[in-house]
Amino acid sequence: MSIDHEPLRGLLGRDPVVATSGVALFADELRAQAVPVSEVAWKPVGEHSREALATVMADQRRVAANAEALARMTAAEAMLVDVVLARDALGLERGTFLHAGPPITWERASGPLRGALIGAVLFEGLAQTPEEAEAQLAAGAFEWEPCHHRDAVGPMAGVVSPSMWMYELRDEVHGNTSWCSLNEGLGKVLRYGAYGQEVIDRLHWMTDVLGPLLQQSVRATGPFDIRAILAQMLQMGDEGHNRNRAGSLMLLRELLPGLITADGSSSDIAEAVRFSGANEHFFLNLGMPACKLATMAAHGIPGCSVVTTMARNGTDFGIRVSGTGEEWFTGPANTPEGLFLGDYGPEDANPDIGDSAITETGGIGGFAMAAAPAIVKFVGGDVPFALTATQTMYEITEGEHTAYQVPILGFRGTPTGIDVTKVVRTGVLPQINTGMAGRVAGTGQVGAGLVTPPMECFTAALDALAQHAG
Amino acid sequence: MSIDHEPLRGLLGRDPVVATSGVALFADELRAQAVPVSEVAWKPVGEHSREALATVMADQRRVAANAEALARMTAAEAMLVDVVLARDALGLERGTFLHAGPPITWERASGPLRGALIGAVLFEGLAQTPEEAEAQLAAGAFEWEPCHHRDAVGPMAGVVSPSMWMYELRDEVHGNTSWCSLNEGLGKVLRYGAYGQEVIDRLHWMTDVLGPLLQQSVRATGPFDIRAILAQMLQMGDEGHNRNRAGSLMLLRELLPGLITADGSSSDIAEAVRFSGANEHFFLNLGMPACKLATMAAHGIPGCSVVTTMARNGTDFGIRVSGTGEEWFTGPANTPEGLFLGDYGPEDANPDIGDSAITETGGIGGFAMAAAPAIVKFVGGDVPFALTATQTMYEITEGEHTAYQVPILGFRGTPTGIDVTKVVRTGVLPQINTGMAGRVAGTGQVGAGLVTPPMECFTAALDALAQHAG
Repeated sequence: MSIDHEPLRGLLGRDPVVATSGVALFADELRAQAVPVSEVAWKPVGEHSREALATVMADQRRVAANAEALARMTAAEAMLVDVVLARDALGLERGTFLHAGPPITWERASGPLRGALIGAVLFEGLAQTPEEAEAQLAAGAFEWEPCHHRDAVGPMAGVVSPSMWMYELRDEVHGNTSWCSLNEGLGKVLRYGAYGQEVIDRLHWMTDVLGPLLQQSVRATGPFDIRAILAQMLQMGDEGHNRNRAGSLMLLRELLPGLITADGSSSDIAEAVRFSGANEHFFLNLGMPACKLATMAAHGIPGCSVVTTMARNGTDFGIRVSGTGEEWFTGPANTPEGLFLGDYGPEDANPDIGDSAITETGGIGGFAMAAAPAIVKFVGGDVPFALTATQTMYEITEGEHTAYQVPILGFRGTPTGIDVTKVVRTGVLPQINTGMAGRVAGTGQVGAGLVTPPMECFTAALDALAQHAG
Repeated sequence: MSIDHEPLRGLLGRDPVVATSGVALFADELRAQAVPVSEVAWKPVGEHSREALATVMADQRRVAANAEALARMTAAEAMLVDVVLARDALGLERGTFLHAGPPITWERASGPLRGALIGAVLFEGLAQTPEEAEAQLAAGAFEWEPCHHRDAVGPMAGVVSPSMWMYELRDEVHGNTSWCSLNEGLGKVLRYGAYGQEVIDRLHWMTDVLGPLLQQSVRATGPFDIRAILAQMLQMGDEGHNRNRAGSLMLLRELLPGLITADGSSSDIAEAVRFSGANEHFFLNLGMPACKLATMAAHGIPGCSVVTTMARNGTDFGIRVSGTGEEWFTGPANTPEGLFLGDYGPEDANPDIGDSAITETGGIGGFAMAAAPAIVKFVGGDVPFALTATQTMYEITEGEHTAYQVPILGFRGTPTGIDVTKVVRTGVLPQINTGMAGRVAGTGQVGAGLVTPPMECFTAALDALAQHAG
C-alpha cells in the first residue's frame, strides 16, 4: 500500500493558523501577538443537560434510528391528490377549530390567534359580531386543538374551521396523508389575526368558488408532485417558507388546464386564476403539508433524537421528537427580528406563530436560505448571512436531503433532520424565516423576519429522550 | 483634513502576496521559493492593434460617449405592446425572409440556416417539397437579410417569414420598437434547422391559433413590462438566455387572464395555455427584443466603443458598435462546448448561431450566469465557473446595470455595455451561453453550451473606431 503524502505537503506548505473555541480571551491574546486565529463558535453544554446528553448519546439505538429517520424523510412522497372540506377530511364538527402550534387555552392565547378564532367563529355563522364571538370563545362555548393532532398544518394562526377547503396530500411510500388550508394572500387575512368584513367575505368566496374549482382541477388533472416542485423551487431562488414565488407559478401552471376547463362561470374561473396568480405565497400551503408528510414518516422511531415537529401558537414554541411520541416540549416563543410593512415597527410584532416551521423541520425554509439570497430583502439580514445560515444548519442536522439541493453550494443537499443532541451540544438553534403577525387581534401582517426557537424546547426533549433511553 | 490610516494598518497586518501577470515563469519561480503568488490573467495586446488602441483611447469623445451609452441602455424600456404579423409589422413581402446574424449568401450558409429557410419556404407554400425549396433557394428565387436590419431579432437560425406572428416591444423613452417571433419549443423546431411535417404543422397552428389568441390577450390586458420580468428572473435563478424558467412562468401569468377570456374555442385556449406553459424557453423571445431595445438606444453615439450587436448566422460571428454605424465586423463563428441531448456529440454541433447573443450584449445571459448557478446542468461548466464568468465580464464592460441585479453578488448590477477597447486590451472575450443546432440541415437541437466570439470581430471594430476617431 502506498501512502499519498500530497495532503501533508500541502499542510506544511501553508502558514499555520490557530483555531480557538470557547471564551474569546484565547483568540484576543493570540491576535494581539499577530498570530492568525480562526475562532470556532462553541458554548459548553449547560450543567443540567450534561448527564442527559451522555445518556442519550450512549443509547445504542440512536445512530441507526436517526439514519432511518433521515432515509424516511427524504424518501417521503407528497402528491396533491384532492381538495376537500375540513369537516369531511378531518371530521371537524361545527363549533370545533384547529390552530397552529402546541395546545393553548383562551387565557394564554396571543392576539393573532384570538383574532383568527374570532374570524372563524364569524365565518361559520356561530356569532354575529366580533364581540359576541369573543365572549363565546372566552366562555368556553367552542373547542380547539392543534392542527398537528389531526396530521394537518396551518400557517401563522393556522385556524381551520369545518367549512374551509383543505389540500389533501398523500405519501404512498409510508401510507400517510396530510392536510393544509388554502392560502388567502397577504395583509389583512385570517391567518394573521384579521377578522374584518373583507376577511370574512374572502373566506366565503374561497369556500363557495375557489375551493370547488380547485377540487375539479386536481381531480381532473392531478395528482401533482409537490416534492418535485419544491426541488425545482430551490433552483429558482425560493426557500419554500417566506419565498414561494417560483413555486406558486409552477403550481399555477399545473392547476391551470384543469381550472380553465372546469365546470363554472368564466368570470369565476378568471377570478380564481387571478387570485391564485396574484399571490406569491400561494404555494406555501402545499409545501407545508409536503414537509409534514416527510416528518410524519420519520416520527415514532424508538431511540431517535430527530425533531419531527416545530410549531408555535404565538405564545409557546413547541417541538416533538421522533423517539418521544406525542409529547410537546415547549418554551416561550421568541419575537422575530426583520423588516416591517408600512408604518409598523418592532413594538407591533407578536411573538413567533404558525405551523410553517414544519418547512425548517423538513430541511427547507431557513435551512435553505442559501438557495434564496433575494429573500434577505423580505426577512432582513444580508446575502452572507443567508449563505452562513444554511451552512451552519449542517452542524445540527442528521444529513443532507437527496432531492432538495442548493445550486450555489455546488448542489449540496439541504441540511435535513434536526438532531436534538446536536442542538444541545453545539448551542446552535434552528434558523427560521417567518412572517410577523400584529400583536393586537385584528391587525393582520406587520412584517417578516428571522427567529429561532427557545433552547428549553431542546433541553426538555433531551431529558425525555434520556428517560426513554434503551 | 484627517487621513484614515486604518486601511494601511490592515495592509501591514497581513502577509504580503506577490501578484504576477503575463508569462507563467514569474509565478512558477516564486512558488518554487514558497512565496505566495496571485496570478493575474493578462495577454499583451497584439502588435496590429496597439496603434488603433492608442488612437481610440485618445479620442476625447469616448469616455462621455460610453457613459451615455450605458445610461441609455439601462434607461431603455421594453413594453410588450402588441402581437402582429411580420408582413404588416416589418413590411416583409412574399418570398422575402429574415435570418439571424450578419448577411450571408446561400453558398456560405450553415446547415441549420439552410434548413430553416427550406422550412420557411414550405410554410409559406412557395414550394411543395424540401428538394424544390432548396433548389429555389440555391437558384436565387428568394431574398433574405438579417433580422437586425429591420430592428428585429431571431433565436438560432432566426428565420422569419411574412406569415409569422411577431411580439412587438416598445421603448417610449428613446422612441424605438423591436420585434421577435414566437417561440416554438425545443427539439425539432424551425429555428434549429428542422423542417419536417411536424415543424410545418406547428408553424401553421401558431399562425392560425396561437398568434391571434396572444394578440387578443396583449391588446386586452397589456402592455406588459418585460424589463420588470427580466429583473425578477435574475432573482429567480434565470440568466435570460438559456434559462428562462421563471420568466416563462411570469409571462404566462401576465398573459393568462387575457387568454382565458379571449374570443376563441375553449379547446384552442386550453391548447394555447398548455403549449405556452410547457415551454421553459417561452420567454426568450421577449427577453431578446427587450435587450435589442436597450442596445438600439445606445447605438449611433459618435466616438462610442460600446458593442450594440453580437449575432451569428452559423458561419460568421458579427458585431456592430455604437460609434461605427451599420458596419458589421465579422469572423468565423466558434463551435460551442457543452452538454448534448440524447446520442448527439461534439461532431454533430454546428458553429455558433443566432441573434440571442443580444442578451449578453444587453448585460444578461452569460454575463448574468452568477444569478443562475443551476444553468451549469444545461450548458456545462460548474458553479464556480458560473460565478467567475459574471465577475470576469466586469473587466470588459462599461458599468453595471441598474435594474438587472445578481443577488449572490450582494445585488450587484450585471456587467453591461461591452467596450471594444477593454476586450482588445485584456484579451477577455464575452461569455455567451447558447443552444447548439445540428450541423446537418433538418436535424434540430443537439445540445447547449458555452462559446465566445472570435477576437477578430473586436480588433476589426477597433480599427474602424480608430478611423472614425475625433
